[in-house]
Amino acid sequence: MPTKTLRDLFIHSLSDIYSAEKQMTKSLPKMARASTNPDLRAAFEKHLEETQGQIQRIDRIVEMSGIKLKRVKCVAMEGLVEEGQEVIDEIEKGPVLDTALIASAQKVEHYEIASYGSLIAMGKQLEEGAAAKLLAETLKEETATDEALSQLAEEKVAAESMGK
Amino acid sequence: MPTKTLRDLFIHSLSDIYSAEKQMTKSLPKMARASTNPDLRAAFEKHLEETQGQIQRIDRIVEMSGIKLKRVKCVAMEGLVEEGQEVIDEIEKGPVLDTALIASAQKVEHYEIASYGSLIAMGKQLEEGAAAKLLAETLKEETATDEALSQLAEEKVAAESMGK
Repeated sequence: MPTKTLRDLFIHSLSDIYSAEKQMTKSLPKMARASTNPDLRAAFEKHLEETQGQIQRIDRIVEMSGIKLKRVKCVAMEGLVEEGQEVIDEIEKGPVLDTALIASAQKVEHYEIASYGSLIAMGKQLEEGAAAKLLAETLKEETATDEALSQLAEEKVAAESMGK
Repeated sequence: MPTKTLRDLFIHSLSDIYSAEKQMTKSLPKMARASTNPDLRAAFEKHLEETQGQIQRIDRIVEMSGIKLKRVKCVAMEGLVEEGQEVIDEIEKGPVLDTALIASAQKVEHYEIASYGSLIAMGKQLEEGAAAKLLAETLKEETATDEALSQLAEEKVAAESMGK
């Protein structure tokens, strides 16, 4: 089905982030297992739970709006996940890997921040107020996760990596 | 060369964003040509110039710090560029494509915001103050571009797409 209207684009973008979030539910446990710093591990585990809630929010939007999601695979998130996996494969477990995991995760968070920002703008234009509100809840979580990771990068993990 | 120290990670990340920026110099002109809204086209053209300046900043960091960049291709940016190209191929030129182009470009900006944020944190830890300062100039430009795109999405282009 071609994308012709703003509504088509909204549905396509929602399908894309749905795929991205599903990919993250598989990637986050690997990132948690690869972490040495317990706070980082906890941050990944917390965000995995949030991600599951975010998927449920999309399911609710689909129900509310009578939208039919497309079966798409988010290629951009595939690239980000691949980059995160390379980091795990190539760097020895420890503080440097922790710093690299934070950097990878922040790229993912920012991908999601951009996606939800665009979806909210489209949702408002389409007068899908309830959907926009649910998406804004998710955006808030993604932003908070990004900020928590920044703090971990600056305060804890990076300081530890100087020992290496 | 394996990534063992924070400095290795900094060099790897800098090589990665260098590849990403190079890819953008090829992608931005296509996005500008695909835009209908003249303000959006101008925003892409302005950001192409900025991107060229950002590449030169990395060249300066390389010179200053005696870093040797790795030949890597940023796979995540490949995915983002591919997604942007799909948008251009699949959507008819007009306000809906403009909205989709803004969304794609904001994903790219956020990828870069995350990357430069991590690089600055690492640069500071490594006491590469001059490099961190140059990277912060770039980060400021990326953030400003993202904000300009958000404004375009909310005010102009999205309003026009409602006509479709």
